[in-house]
Amino acid sequence: MRENAILLVQCPDRKGLVASVTGFIFANGGNIVRLDQYSDSAEQRFFMRAEWELEGFALGKPALAEALPALAARLGISYQLFFTSERLRMAVLVSRQDHCLFDLLLRRRAGEIDVDIPAVIGNHDDLREVAGMFGVPFHCFPVEGDPALQERRILEVLAREKTDFVVLARYMRILSPAFIEKYPWRIINVHHSFLPAFSGAKPYHQAYARGVKVIGATSHFVTAELDAGPIIEQETVKISHEDSVADMTMKGRDLERKVLAQAVQYYIEHRLFVDGGRTIIF
Amino acid sequence: MRENAILLVQCPDRKGLVASVTGFIFANGGNIVRLDQYSDSAEQRFFMRAEWELEGFALGKPALAEALPALAARLGISYQLFFTSERLRMAVLVSRQDHCLFDLLLRRRAGEIDVDIPAVIGNHDDLREVAGMFGVPFHCFPVEGDPALQERRILEVLAREKTDFVVLARYMRILSPAFIEKYPWRIINVHHSFLPAFSGAKPYHQAYARGVKVIGATSHFVTAELDAGPIIEQETVKISHEDSVADMTMKGRDLERKVLAQAVQYYIEHRLFVDGGRTIIF
Amino acid sequence: MRENAILLVQCPDRKGLVASVTGFIFANGGNIVRLDQYSDSAEQRFFMRAEWELEGFALGKPALAEALPALAARLGISYQLFFTSERLRMAVLVSRQDHCLFDLLLRRRAGEIDVDIPAVIGNHDDLREVAGMFGVPFHCFPVEGDPALQERRILEVLAREKTDFVVLARYMRILSPAFIEKYPWRIINVHHSFLPAFSGAKPYHQAYARGVKVIGATSHFVTAELDAGPIIEQETVKISHEDSVADMTMKGRDLERKVLAQAVQYYIEHRLFVDGGRTIIF
Amino acid sequence: MRENAILLVQCPDRKGLVASVTGFIFANGGNIVRLDQYSDSAEQRFFMRAEWELEGFALGKPALAEALPALAARLGISYQLFFTSERLRMAVLVSRQDHCLFDLLLRRRAGEIDVDIPAVIGNHDDLREVAGMFGVPFHCFPVEGDPALQERRILEVLAREKTDFVVLARYMRILSPAFIEKYPWRIINVHHSFLPAFSGAKPYHQAYARGVKVIGATSHFVTAELDAGPIIEQETVKISHEDSVADMTMKGRDLERKVLAQAVQYYIEHRLFVDGGRTIIF
Repeated sequence: MRENAILLVQCPDRKGLVASVTGFIFANGGNIVRLDQYSDSAEQRFFMRAEWELEGFALGKPALAEALPALAARLGISYQLFFTSERLRMAVLVSRQDHCLFDLLLRRRAGEIDVDIPAVIGNHDDLREVAGMFGVPFHCFPVEGDPALQERRILEVLAREKTDFVVLARYMRILSPAFIEKYPWRIINVHHSFLPAFSGAKPYHQAYARGVKVIGATSHFVTAELDAGPIIEQETVKISHEDSVADMTMKGRDLERKVLAQAVQYYIEHRLFVDGGRTIIF
Repeated sequence: MRENAILLVQCPDRKGLVASVTGFIFANGGNIVRLDQYSDSAEQRFFMRAEWELEGFALGKPALAEALPALAARLGISYQLFFTSERLRMAVLVSRQDHCLFDLLLRRRAGEIDVDIPAVIGNHDDLREVAGMFGVPFHCFPVEGDPALQERRILEVLAREKTDFVVLARYMRILSPAFIEKYPWRIINVHHSFLPAFSGAKPYHQAYARGVKVIGATSHFVTAELDAGPIIEQETVKISHEDSVADMTMKGRDLERKVLAQAVQYYIEHRLFVDGGRTIIF
Repeated sequence: MRENAILLVQCPDRKGLVASVTGFIFANGGNIVRLDQYSDSAEQRFFMRAEWELEGFALGKPALAEALPALAARLGISYQLFFTSERLRMAVLVSRQDHCLFDLLLRRRAGEIDVDIPAVIGNHDDLREVAGMFGVPFHCFPVEGDPALQERRILEVLAREKTDFVVLARYMRILSPAFIEKYPWRIINVHHSFLPAFSGAKPYHQAYARGVKVIGATSHFVTAELDAGPIIEQETVKISHEDSVADMTMKGRDLERKVLAQAVQYYIEHRLFVDGGRTIIF
Repeated sequence: MRENAILLVQCPDRKGLVASVTGFIFANGGNIVRLDQYSDSAEQRFFMRAEWELEGFALGKPALAEALPALAARLGISYQLFFTSERLRMAVLVSRQDHCLFDLLLRRRAGEIDVDIPAVIGNHDDLREVAGMFGVPFHCFPVEGDPALQERRILEVLAREKTDFVVLARYMRILSPAFIEKYPWRIINVHHSFLPAFSGAKPYHQAYARGVKVIGATSHFVTAELDAGPIIEQETVKISHEDSVADMTMKGRDLERKVLAQAVQYYIEHRLFVDGGRTIIF
């Protein structure tokens, strides 16, 4: 696998940002393999993702990391630096439904998503077998009495496993603000409706009652406000009067799998920016 | 054009309804060309649409109309009877945006929707030219002072033109409950969002602010509660962070055209039932 | 689970067929829960699927089976009779790719497709582990020397396991006409293109070379002519110039899973007719 | 309207291209509002589109045009230069079907596509009225006897009207290679199938006969080989056994309109590259 560097830049828009950053890369002999840039003209914000080959690049990884703060200060930019050789570590939180967990484990197995999964954590024990089928350690922390205690145990596992980000694969508990703050823009949830419609509990029941002709699913970053975080991906599918809540649930599973896998894909490829309540995706 | 009869049946579900109705048609020599039936097992409701050829049928149109009440009483069903030879009359209410009006006029011109359009009525004069391009009479009733007066004038045109149903093609006024009651389940609106998300004013602005990754459009029957009537058709399209409100507005136009034309199509082919807050569509 | 009877009727169109069949059901006290009917006006062909509850029906299963030939003879119809209580037995043929096999096994596990899977048969041994994860017997019959011998071994397993129908879940061998004749309209394949485009080998390579902007997948009945059997389901997804053959392969997997699962669903619910080279699906 | 410059670069991939080009823009005080770049790693080809504001840019339009050859020679790149202030001139060739012509005229009227339409040219006179509704000059050149003569007359109009590119809006004649050579990569056609399936005549009839479950439409550049030019856009829609050829024709119209309008949009915004038989679209 080729080792590339990925630089994400996010800052107020002004002239010369692309030229300055690409000039820095070129001056050090880097070959840019992909460059994406977006200027939000309404908000005057600038976003850029540059990916270049480290082979032939004058700076090694540590030297690059050391050189960037000076560049950033000179240009007045915020940035993040990643290397494609450093695989992210993803923890998966689950309850009883297995379809999203299966999908993530299968895509990793098939090489579609290049990520480490050091832990699956459930508030029920139901999916221990599923994790086991793929050789992934499973932890069960039921919510008994003190919810804060349960979250503490989860956080211990996350810390011990050096978790980069957390995926809620139909995890049916609401995380506390304190938990969320520990992983800012690093917790991804899937909700089984096209948000903002049908947030909260039982969206397919809500959809049935309203008589909609499409249902959807949404992957989004988790924030303290329920189902209100920045949206990453949405898919919809048409339904008819013949579809019961059970039919919607079944059809919706395909959507949930898809939007969650896509969100993970974007995340691990470092293609996601959060700007206010919206995401920029390259 | 072949002349067919269409019978819509809607009633509590019970045994033998299909057999009894189709038996009646067969006993009179009718050839059924399309039959659709749906039983809502949760609500125990029965819906059926039968279409048969009048050629070779023992009863003429008046005789058929006379024979049905006795059948309905015997079976305990509610029904509606239509003939494909009787083209419906549709009035179109508009404001300033022309894309839905153009679309309906073009589809009628192309023979896609088989309907008479005796009147286009605007609360502004902007679209007089468009109606004129297609030879359709245009009436302008601005809302000045008394809104009730404006509605009265519209109702006068509708009555004079023997209007079967009304389409709001981006008509930007809210109709009064009194107006709506005069045309129960006979007023169709298009709303530029995937309802129930973003009801009310400026849905594309709402969508932009929320950062959704799909936008949609909805056609629905108008009821006294704003944007809450039974949904007929919905379509969505994917968008990205690059789409401004203006881009959404442009992309949304294609959806609006499509869901409104589809609703009209269902309506004039007598394929629509309303059951509670939902539609059954054959 | 409620036990229902399903009657499929296929014959030249003529008057009174719906009335006669539903009359027979009603006369014996059957409650029809779903009735679908389609008349192909161009070909003058009639298709009907009636499903009714056996509870309260005057005839038991054997008596019903005995009564139908007389009815069929009187009406001049071809028919098939099924009972929802009799779960079909599906064999799955595979090679090395696991995504379609996994998908079918998972959907069965989740109760989405109500089918027995008595055997997975591979021409390679690679997917033994996958079948094993779900407790399904796996047979490996490599093609060594005599292909006819390999097919004979497969047929032995199919016969022994009383297989109702066969699914080719990315099975990379072409079946002989003799094999296909043994399971007429009972072998379903998935092809990774929107047929008739890109039939034969390496469709994603063909798609890349042609520069298409959508790719697709097709499930179809297998006939002696390669990739030319009646199509059951097709799905497409948009791609761009950025998508390599590897990207298409990955995106295509989701389509392949979906069209194959949908075809199996239609098949086991007895909703499929073959008429000439086309399928009628209720 | 802001006046921007757009530079398209296409050449063998090598290091420093982005940095060099953006460096040139920045050195002259240009503010890049959008930059897209793509490297085809299989073919080692480089594509870039840079758009920047001329306001505040050191070079005026003529000076910029003069400066670029030296830069291009130094970097070894091919390029094209456009200005957003210079609206393209599009001629539309038609036969008898009006839906694509109406769509283009309506989108221009609505400001969705920013293009001049100096001429609509038909081989039949049917659409004179449509062009007239929008005040666009219409020319009718029937094919009588000598097809070369007809093409010569069309070319005369194109030349006189300083036509930048030509759109075949369901024009039912095949253009000669000599004609096509005069407008290389400047003639866009819409074909009513998802190419490469169903090229040539009567694609909906072909689709019906094959029993496909999706139909599509394709916009593409015209080359000497029929329906084989680089594809720009494709859309598909699901159909069922109930859809006759007439139904497909109707549903297909929406697709044809959409893919043709999208192709025109890409073209006039200078977002299209042709590379071998494929298009790169930013």
